[in-house]
Amino acid sequence: MTNPTTLQTPALLADMNTLERNLDRMAAYAAEHDLGLRPHVKTHKSSRVAQAQVERGVVGLTCATPREAEVMAVCHDDLLMAYPPLGGGRVERMLALPPAVRPMVALDSVEALQHLAHAAREAARTVRVLVELDLGMRRVGVSTPQEAVSLAQTVTDTNGIEFAGVAFYPGHLKNPGTEREEGLARLGQDLGTMLDALTTAGLPAGIVSGGSTPTAWETHRIPGVTEFRPGTYVYNDRTTVAAGACRLEDCALTVLATVVSTAVSGQAVIDAGSKGLGREPMSGDPALGYGELVGHPEVVVSRMSEEHGVLDLSRTAWRPTVGEQVRVLPNHVCIVVHLHDAVHGFRGESWEESWPVEARGRLPA
Amino acid sequence: MTNPTTLQTPALLADMNTLERNLDRMAAYAAEHDLGLRPHVKTHKSSRVAQAQVERGVVGLTCATPREAEVMAVCHDDLLMAYPPLGGGRVERMLALPPAVRPMVALDSVEALQHLAHAAREAARTVRVLVELDLGMRRVGVSTPQEAVSLAQTVTDTNGIEFAGVAFYPGHLKNPGTEREEGLARLGQDLGTMLDALTTAGLPAGIVSGGSTPTAWETHRIPGVTEFRPGTYVYNDRTTVAAGACRLEDCALTVLATVVSTAVSGQAVIDAGSKGLGREPMSGDPALGYGELVGHPEVVVSRMSEEHGVLDLSRTAWRPTVGEQVRVLPNHVCIVVHLHDAVHGFRGESWEESWPVEARGRLPA
Repeated sequence: MTNPTTLQTPALLADMNTLERNLDRMAAYAAEHDLGLRPHVKTHKSSRVAQAQVERGVVGLTCATPREAEVMAVCHDDLLMAYPPLGGGRVERMLALPPAVRPMVALDSVEALQHLAHAAREAARTVRVLVELDLGMRRVGVSTPQEAVSLAQTVTDTNGIEFAGVAFYPGHLKNPGTEREEGLARLGQDLGTMLDALTTAGLPAGIVSGGSTPTAWETHRIPGVTEFRPGTYVYNDRTTVAAGACRLEDCALTVLATVVSTAVSGQAVIDAGSKGLGREPMSGDPALGYGELVGHPEVVVSRMSEEHGVLDLSRTAWRPTVGEQVRVLPNHVCIVVHLHDAVHGFRGESWEESWPVEARGRLPA
Repeated sequence: MTNPTTLQTPALLADMNTLERNLDRMAAYAAEHDLGLRPHVKTHKSSRVAQAQVERGVVGLTCATPREAEVMAVCHDDLLMAYPPLGGGRVERMLALPPAVRPMVALDSVEALQHLAHAAREAARTVRVLVELDLGMRRVGVSTPQEAVSLAQTVTDTNGIEFAGVAFYPGHLKNPGTEREEGLARLGQDLGTMLDALTTAGLPAGIVSGGSTPTAWETHRIPGVTEFRPGTYVYNDRTTVAAGACRLEDCALTVLATVVSTAVSGQAVIDAGSKGLGREPMSGDPALGYGELVGHPEVVVSRMSEEHGVLDLSRTAWRPTVGEQVRVLPNHVCIVVHLHDAVHGFRGESWEESWPVEARGRLPA
C-alpha cells in the first residue's frame, strides 16, 4: 500500500508528522514546567502510540478499562486506572497484570476502596490509591475537604492499600476565554483548600493528578499539581480546536471516506456515518455538524445514518463525484478511534505504517 | 456463568424469550401477507441471530458492509448489499464471497454501476442490481420516474449485471399517527408512479424491496412491495417503542452496567457511557436522555462521558449504592451492539448462551 486510495473506507488516517509534533510539544511543555505527564491512552488505545509517548518521557500511563491496562502493561510499569474498579472482573483483571506493573487507582467511595482492598489482599499485591476530587465537573469525586480527608484517612488505614494522593478532572473548563480563566482560578482555590485540609490532617498528597487536553497548557498555573493526564492531544480534533487548545493544523487524525451517492440534490453521501464517525455534536451548535471536510471547511456532515454521512453542499460550489475520496476531520477523535480496527499512518502522501486499535473492546487482551 | 453478576460491565444482555418472540412475530407477519422477509443484519451482526431468522423463513439477508456479507455468507445464499459498492475493496470483497452466494446490490448511480460491472466481469460473476429510489427519505436514491427508468435501462444494458427491481427505505416515517399515515399514502402513490413508469418502459421491477422496523407492520399496505428489510425488530429499543412499532416488553436487549460513583449529589454514575451505550438521543426530546433504567423508567442517563453515564435521580426516590448493577434500555440498539464484542443470552434469570458480534468492524471475516 503506498497511497490511501487503496484503503477500504471508512478508514482512519494519521499524519505522522503532526502526531509526532503533538507528542513532542506536550512532552516539552511537561518538562519545561517540571510536571509529570501521564497520558490517558483512551484516545489512541494503541501500544504503538503509547510507546512513542513513553520514549518522550512520561511518569506513567492512564487507563480507563481493564483491556487498556492489559495492552499498556508492556509499555510502562506505572499504570493509573482512572476509574473506580467495580463491576465483575475489573479489579481481578487489574490485579492479574504482570508483577512488574505497579497499579494505581482513583476512586471516590469507601465501597470501591473496600472492594479493591479485599481483592488486593487476596492477590497479595499493594495498590496505590488516589482520592478522586470533584473540582466543579460534577461527574465523580468527593466535593468537600471533610470528605476528602475522611476518605484519605480510610485509605491510609486499609491494609494492602497505600494512599498516594489525589486526582481530579477539569473537563468542565472546555470553553476558552473568561469562562476558563475564572474556572481555573476557582479550581485552583478549591484544590488548595483540599490539599491544605489533607496536609493539616497529616495526610499530605504526594501525587496531585490533573488532566484533560483543553486545559493541558494551563496546568502549570494550578498550584500544587504534580502531574497531568491529557489524552486527546496526540491526535486533536475539532473540539480541541474550538477549545483553543490546538490549531487546525495540529489535528493529526482524519476519517477517509468515499462519496457513495449524489442522487439527492444539494448533498452528497459518504460512507462514514454514526458507526464510523460517531454521533458527537460540537458543543452548542448543531450547524457545525458531525465533522468537516479537509480542504472544504465550509462542508460539514450535517446528518448521519449508521453507514451514511450526508455532506451539506449548500455553502459550497464544490461538487464531488461518486467514487471520490474525501477526508473528514471529526468532532471527537476518541470516539472515532473506538469505532475502528486500525489506524493508517502517512508521512506526507506516503503510507508509512498501520497499527491496530488494540485496546478497543472489553475482552481480555 | 449462571447469572449476570459475574459479567464484566458494561455488557449486553439479550432476553431469549423476547428475542424469539420478536423473530416469530415478524416471520408470521411476513407469511400472513405473503411478503418476503429480508432482515437487515446491521442490528445484530451475528450469524447466531441470522440463523434464527433464516430458520423462521426469509428470502435472503440484507447487509451494509463487506464484513457483514462475509459473516452472513454461511447463513444464506441470497445477500443484498443495501449499499453502493464503492470505496477500496468493497466490490472485490463482495465478489470474493463463496460461489454459492448470489449477491445483489442496491445503487443509485451510473458510476457505482460501472464500477460494479467492471469488477463483476473480471470475476466472471453475475450480480443482480436493484435501483435505489428516494421516496421521501432524502438520503440516497433517484427521485424521479425518468431517472429510475434511465438507470434501470442502463442496468439492463450492462454486461455482467441483471436488473432485478427496485429498493427504497422509508426511514423518514418514524413518527406514528397522522404524519405516518399521510406519509405512507404519499409513499404508496410515488412508488406506484415509479413502478408504472418502469413497466411502461418494458422494465418491470421483479423485486420491490422496502424496509425499516418503524413501518414494518404497515408494509402490506404499500401496493407493489414484494419484500421488506427490517433490522431493529430483533431486539427493539426505546426509539422503536416511541415509533409505535413495539411495546416496552418487546425490547430484548439491555446494557448491564455497574454503579461506580454516587459521590456527587442528585445523581449516580454507571460504567456505560458514550463508548458503551452510544450517544444516540431520542428524537426531539433531550430530557429523555440516552437510555432509561429497567424497573426505574423515571431514571434516565442524562449525561455521558466516554466511560461514564450519569443517572439523573431528580425524579426518583430510588438511591442506588456503589457496586450495584442496573440495566439500561438503550435508545438505538444498532449502535449499542456495534460498540460491544459479545451478547449474553438469558432465559429468564438463567444464562443460556453468549455469542460474538462477529460482523462488527471492517476487517475481512
